[in-house]
Amino acid sequence: MYRRHRFMKELRAFDNGALSLDETLFHNANGYIGVRGAFEEGYPQGYASVRGTYVNGVYDIVPMPQAEPLHGLVTEKQTLVNIADIQDVKLYVDGILCTPLDDGFVEGCRILDMDDGVTVRTLVWKSPQGKVVRVEVKRMASFVRLPLFLMTYRVVVDAPCEIQFVASHRADVCNFSDPSDPRVASESLKHIVVDRVESGPETIRRAGNRKTGYRSLISTHAATSEIAVVSAVQDEVSVGGPDGQESAGDDAIDVMEELFPEAVVRTFTVQGRADRPVALTRYAAVSDGLRYDDPSQETAKVIECAVEVGVDGLYAEQTEYLRAFWSDVDFEIDGDEALSEALTFNIFQLLQSVGKDGRSHLAAKGLSGEGYEGHYFWDTEMYVQPLFTLTKPEFSRQLLAYRYSILPQARENARALGHRKGALFPWRTISGKECSGFFPAGTAQYHIDGAIAYAVVMYYLVTGDDDFMEKMGLELLLEIARLWYDLGNFYDGKFELHCVTGPDEYTCVVNNNYYTNVSAKYDLVWAVKYFRLFESKGLAGKAREATRISDGELDGFLAASDAMYLPYDAKLGITPQDDSFLSKKVWDLAATPVEDFPLLMHYHPLTLYRYQVCKQADTVLAHFLYEDEVSRDVMERSFRYYEKLTTHDSSLSTCIFSIMASRLGFETEAYDYFGDSVEIDIHDTHGNTKDGIHTANMGGSCLAILFGFAGLRIKDEGVFLSPSVPHAWKGYRFTLKFHGRRVRIEVGGGLVSVRLLAVEGHVSWPVNIFIYGNPMDMSTNEQSFPLRRVSTEDVSQESSSSRSREIS
Amino acid sequence: MYRRHRFMKELRAFDNGALSLDETLFHNANGYIGVRGAFEEGYPQGYASVRGTYVNGVYDIVPMPQAEPLHGLVTEKQTLVNIADIQDVKLYVDGILCTPLDDGFVEGCRILDMDDGVTVRTLVWKSPQGKVVRVEVKRMASFVRLPLFLMTYRVVVDAPCEIQFVASHRADVCNFSDPSDPRVASESLKHIVVDRVESGPETIRRAGNRKTGYRSLISTHAATSEIAVVSAVQDEVSVGGPDGQESAGDDAIDVMEELFPEAVVRTFTVQGRADRPVALTRYAAVSDGLRYDDPSQETAKVIECAVEVGVDGLYAEQTEYLRAFWSDVDFEIDGDEALSEALTFNIFQLLQSVGKDGRSHLAAKGLSGEGYEGHYFWDTEMYVQPLFTLTKPEFSRQLLAYRYSILPQARENARALGHRKGALFPWRTISGKECSGFFPAGTAQYHIDGAIAYAVVMYYLVTGDDDFMEKMGLELLLEIARLWYDLGNFYDGKFELHCVTGPDEYTCVVNNNYYTNVSAKYDLVWAVKYFRLFESKGLAGKAREATRISDGELDGFLAASDAMYLPYDAKLGITPQDDSFLSKKVWDLAATPVEDFPLLMHYHPLTLYRYQVCKQADTVLAHFLYEDEVSRDVMERSFRYYEKLTTHDSSLSTCIFSIMASRLGFETEAYDYFGDSVEIDIHDTHGNTKDGIHTANMGGSCLAILFGFAGLRIKDEGVFLSPSVPHAWKGYRFTLKFHGRRVRIEVGGGLVSVRLLAVEGHVSWPVNIFIYGNPMDMSTNEQSFPLRRVSTEDVSQESSSSRSREIS
Repeated sequence: MYRRHRFMKELRAFDNGALSLDETLFHNANGYIGVRGAFEEGYPQGYASVRGTYVNGVYDIVPMPQAEPLHGLVTEKQTLVNIADIQDVKLYVDGILCTPLDDGFVEGCRILDMDDGVTVRTLVWKSPQGKVVRVEVKRMASFVRLPLFLMTYRVVVDAPCEIQFVASHRADVCNFSDPSDPRVASESLKHIVVDRVESGPETIRRAGNRKTGYRSLISTHAATSEIAVVSAVQDEVSVGGPDGQESAGDDAIDVMEELFPEAVVRTFTVQGRADRPVALTRYAAVSDGLRYDDPSQETAKVIECAVEVGVDGLYAEQTEYLRAFWSDVDFEIDGDEALSEALTFNIFQLLQSVGKDGRSHLAAKGLSGEGYEGHYFWDTEMYVQPLFTLTKPEFSRQLLAYRYSILPQARENARALGHRKGALFPWRTISGKECSGFFPAGTAQYHIDGAIAYAVVMYYLVTGDDDFMEKMGLELLLEIARLWYDLGNFYDGKFELHCVTGPDEYTCVVNNNYYTNVSAKYDLVWAVKYFRLFESKGLAGKAREATRISDGELDGFLAASDAMYLPYDAKLGITPQDDSFLSKKVWDLAATPVEDFPLLMHYHPLTLYRYQVCKQADTVLAHFLYEDEVSRDVMERSFRYYEKLTTHDSSLSTCIFSIMASRLGFETEAYDYFGDSVEIDIHDTHGNTKDGIHTANMGGSCLAILFGFAGLRIKDEGVFLSPSVPHAWKGYRFTLKFHGRRVRIEVGGGLVSVRLLAVEGHVSWPVNIFIYGNPMDMSTNEQSFPLRRVSTEDVSQESSSSRSREIS
Repeated sequence: MYRRHRFMKELRAFDNGALSLDETLFHNANGYIGVRGAFEEGYPQGYASVRGTYVNGVYDIVPMPQAEPLHGLVTEKQTLVNIADIQDVKLYVDGILCTPLDDGFVEGCRILDMDDGVTVRTLVWKSPQGKVVRVEVKRMASFVRLPLFLMTYRVVVDAPCEIQFVASHRADVCNFSDPSDPRVASESLKHIVVDRVESGPETIRRAGNRKTGYRSLISTHAATSEIAVVSAVQDEVSVGGPDGQESAGDDAIDVMEELFPEAVVRTFTVQGRADRPVALTRYAAVSDGLRYDDPSQETAKVIECAVEVGVDGLYAEQTEYLRAFWSDVDFEIDGDEALSEALTFNIFQLLQSVGKDGRSHLAAKGLSGEGYEGHYFWDTEMYVQPLFTLTKPEFSRQLLAYRYSILPQARENARALGHRKGALFPWRTISGKECSGFFPAGTAQYHIDGAIAYAVVMYYLVTGDDDFMEKMGLELLLEIARLWYDLGNFYDGKFELHCVTGPDEYTCVVNNNYYTNVSAKYDLVWAVKYFRLFESKGLAGKAREATRISDGELDGFLAASDAMYLPYDAKLGITPQDDSFLSKKVWDLAATPVEDFPLLMHYHPLTLYRYQVCKQADTVLAHFLYEDEVSRDVMERSFRYYEKLTTHDSSLSTCIFSIMASRLGFETEAYDYFGDSVEIDIHDTHGNTKDGIHTANMGGSCLAILFGFAGLRIKDEGVFLSPSVPHAWKGYRFTLKFHGRRVRIEVGGGLVSVRLLAVEGHVSWPVNIFIYGNPMDMSTNEQSFPLRRVSTEDVSQESSSSRSREIS
């Protein structure tokens, strides 16, 4: 029952919002390059467009003056750079621009084909003379050749006419700005400086005949960071017979090429005949000076190889890549097409977004837009990375390698914040340097350290990758533990953490944020535990040398962890978000006008700080991640308490509430929150997908399946599942990879089936899978268990029975 | 024993720091205009100078972009404008510029004559030809004619030579900038736009003969605020005989005048003869569009009147003004010349700084420089205003009238911060609009409301000014009480104030800052008490109408006040600064390198927030102001505790520690802290007096005499004094005005003498003065009491015995 992964949208509404939203939804990216899905021909004046091309990790530096220049505040930031326009192709039929935005529009649609890894835009257009023009534009960012962007632009007309492609390659581009929205950059800046524009026809041999591709190369650098970026574009136009075969040589095509200081424009003119397709093929390659010694040479090489392989071969290898990917990451909901499509869409977008080379990470908006200026946050570790760790652990390792690569800057950041030891990862960054303009809601979110340590621990629990731990993981854990230790203060027998901000940004710079404290406690324990483990394996030498960690420090970590203060309110029987949260006034959400949401856009931060009101899951997230610290009753009361205070103004919220509802047996809520989460981008429910996708929520929607409905826990002893199925669904399935064993779990039809799909590499550890606490027989390839309706009591018992194991 | 109030400095060091420091120390101001004491001829390139002329209340508006544009953050600010250069006079002798900054310097000094209200600069200079030139420049900002600045520049030579004055009137001026220091503005901006430059000789009749004054007028406006500012300058040159009489008519003086787009330059050339003085007299007047309908006319009028009166008459009326002032504000320390001079200096600077027209206030730096951008803060009310209330209550009323004038903006500010009712005064402002760039250390300092209410209450206690209360005071008190009520939250039976910042900026946005809570409690009680009092007098109608206050609200104020949470730490027996202060790590001040002070210049705010370390008195200030809330023991333990944590990086600190030490009977500390406080500017002990004087500390040094050594308390029942004298002194004296009675208190020689100097106006209240708790016999004009050595026990008893009276 192999399902097509395909998302289609009829072209109808052409308002500003719809166009820029679609630029996000249909963007092409591969974790290295990202190209917004603008109409190739552009829009008339007055239409907003974020027409960008981005390279993961390539940034410029812009000044960020502080209103009051207090010591140590960050005064410059990195920003993702719009590096060039490589999608600019205009089609003229008898001299008239062919665009859906005029009266000639008949019909059209946009398709994201997630099996083939391409987007397709179709258009039927009638010229003023009544000639019918059919257009199909297919594009991809290659997963196999990361610098490659490919476009095939095919036209069929129903009557003789002049067909003209004006195909540009431009570096006269700017970043987008919107001074009114704190979530996007507020300055419009041209970040790219053009160093060289070159062009010239290249002769291409293919299948025995000769044709001409026109190639241009634009060398640029980011104005302030001076990072070199080169883009190369090769265009060729072919004319086919009715059977689709090429029928004409170069001589039928009139070509004119113009060079401008920052652009190259090529005009191809063909005499069109009825039903004879004319196609423009564009090979574009992008490379950068961060990764390549000679980026120009790299682009040339990529284009030459791509041309050699040819369009069909390139599309085929993309399809092959996706086939393998969907087999590794095989999530499906049975009985709800819409949610299943949304989930697939989310996973595909994460694949498009994730940096795969250890030189870059996964930005809040992936490579789909300029929201949050392309910065990397903690969300990746907490919301996205578990999915990759459990399905594509090689991606996870690359993400952690990136974090390891910025460890020196994280150490510097810690020093700047007054810590004598340890590493504090920047709250938002591309290069590794902190870019938070408002530290109370930025740098003060120390819990990003907790997220990175959590990702390291889970990665090792799932993969057993000793090599990673030896080379990077241990050092990360130790430096993070040191930071917590230096941050905290023993007071009255308790270890307290002051002046930090938890995930909920509606309350900033507090003492003993529960989430932060429990996460620090966890990190301190695991740092010691893994360091001792690797010592016993004889693999701790590099970490010891790099950190010069002492036994006294390790003892200190354990003492701090033991004494870690975890606030608890006996009167309400819940976990307070922080020391003073519960003594604040309760925000009257019911009385708040609907147009006042998100609150951050309508209230002064100090007003928000003064109330019990949450932007997102904070304590509830802590209870999900570190469930062994509290009883089920406290979890439930806390869930109910915070649910009433939470606006979900952050996209990081509903997925967590879904997970927690699942765990508590609140099926309806779990289902509803999941629906809210999974459709945020595909249905633009937050109204800002035009600025880019919400990658963390996309990951979170997958976690809601895994850790929510399927009741997944990852422990030293193995994989624990206690699945349930919402009434509205027949079931669902997903794959997991655990210590080299790939398994598929199908839930539905009254059964939980576990099938061992493959064993990869050397598997040294015993691997155990527990369904509802019962071990699976690992000698068989497939086993089924009766699906249980998980009652409240079951959850409670299972949770408490496994407590000591997980973090001891 | 009338002492000369005179401060002199030999000219010796001519480094950058000394020159700009002297520009502050010898500035001329009168509460309306301020002119920095630059050398008239300027300095060669490379010397830093803040060569400014300011008008109190005249500002421009500059953008203040926020690094992250969160909702409601302030994004523009007002800044005090350098309006023109009216002190630019260059003296050339035989074509060589006469300046102490070249090899011709022989000797010179600068004098601030506080009896005559003038500054004098003298210079003996030898020309390259060996001619000796003696210069005396005398200047004043007139206290009698606020728009008037007067300068007389007198030259005597010992040999024939050419004497040339190049006298300019310029509006091509900029504000000063230093991007590296958060305490001064970070952008250099030309704020003045010149609208019109006019010039022409004016014929002046005087004493029967005719001479010519050359007058120029430059009309300008501030670029963004569009406030008009006009300056007029009239220069005349006279040549005198050896006896000082004028001996030559205009014909002996060659005059050339040049008009430039933003300046007028006049060159006067005279053939100098030995011992025949040549003098340039400059009358300058400044006026503005905030106060005058036709500022040009105003300046002309002021100049004409001044010329009519003549130089001698103008200087004489200034002397007369000062004589009266020093008789009203007669502070002197017997037995310590240096401290006494410093104290006098401070009082004089406050007189120069205080806005006297209800249209302006008293800036942190007065009119002496551009530090803190000319903004008004809470410090005036808490540190300076008590001095004026007790000696020059008419100044106090004008200051409060200014606050009342910005009540509408304070209400708006409260709404912007999410308060449904009440007024929140801006933390820093000129026009009334908030200018805080970093709200955690700005707008969050709600205690500014407490300072204003405190000033109202003390003003009424001291003056019994019903008219003020009826028209302004009650409304201020009620709107402030409303703010506290709206801010707070009843929790667990207590009324709590969350997310505010107390005076100590090394800890920001905390809950239940003791200082703020106790100040709010006080305000709530007095608002109700005075409203009821004025109701009973039939004088509450205006306030009731303006505020529509209800009885329910008033009851609420009392309930909140009763329930006000005042944190107390039983373990240490002290008042914690806020809810979490005592659970933080203690900053190791002993281990902090001396070059790391002030800490704010060397540590990230988040680092400071995380420690027990104080920039200034906070809880200690609360104990001084609201002493009846705690026992003497708690005060003492708190004093000792906070003393160890306080860096005194703020200039608002040591004066308070001195007062509190006096009250606790710690004579040595009281004396030492007083010395630290009183000399901050005169000896530039904080190293930044070049940016302007520290008015609040100057006031604080006077309060240290009054409320510290003299043990002054102002209560409903009268004036309470319990004086002591530091061992190092013989004694001290000061004057007070209480309900129209002016008294002089002299302490020394084993006695406390109280002398009734005058009774002014209608005195309706019984006025009581208590010395060590004993009532003075008010039927006599003078009475003496034996000076008591105040023991610890006395203080304690007196404090507790008067507790219930003060705030009940």
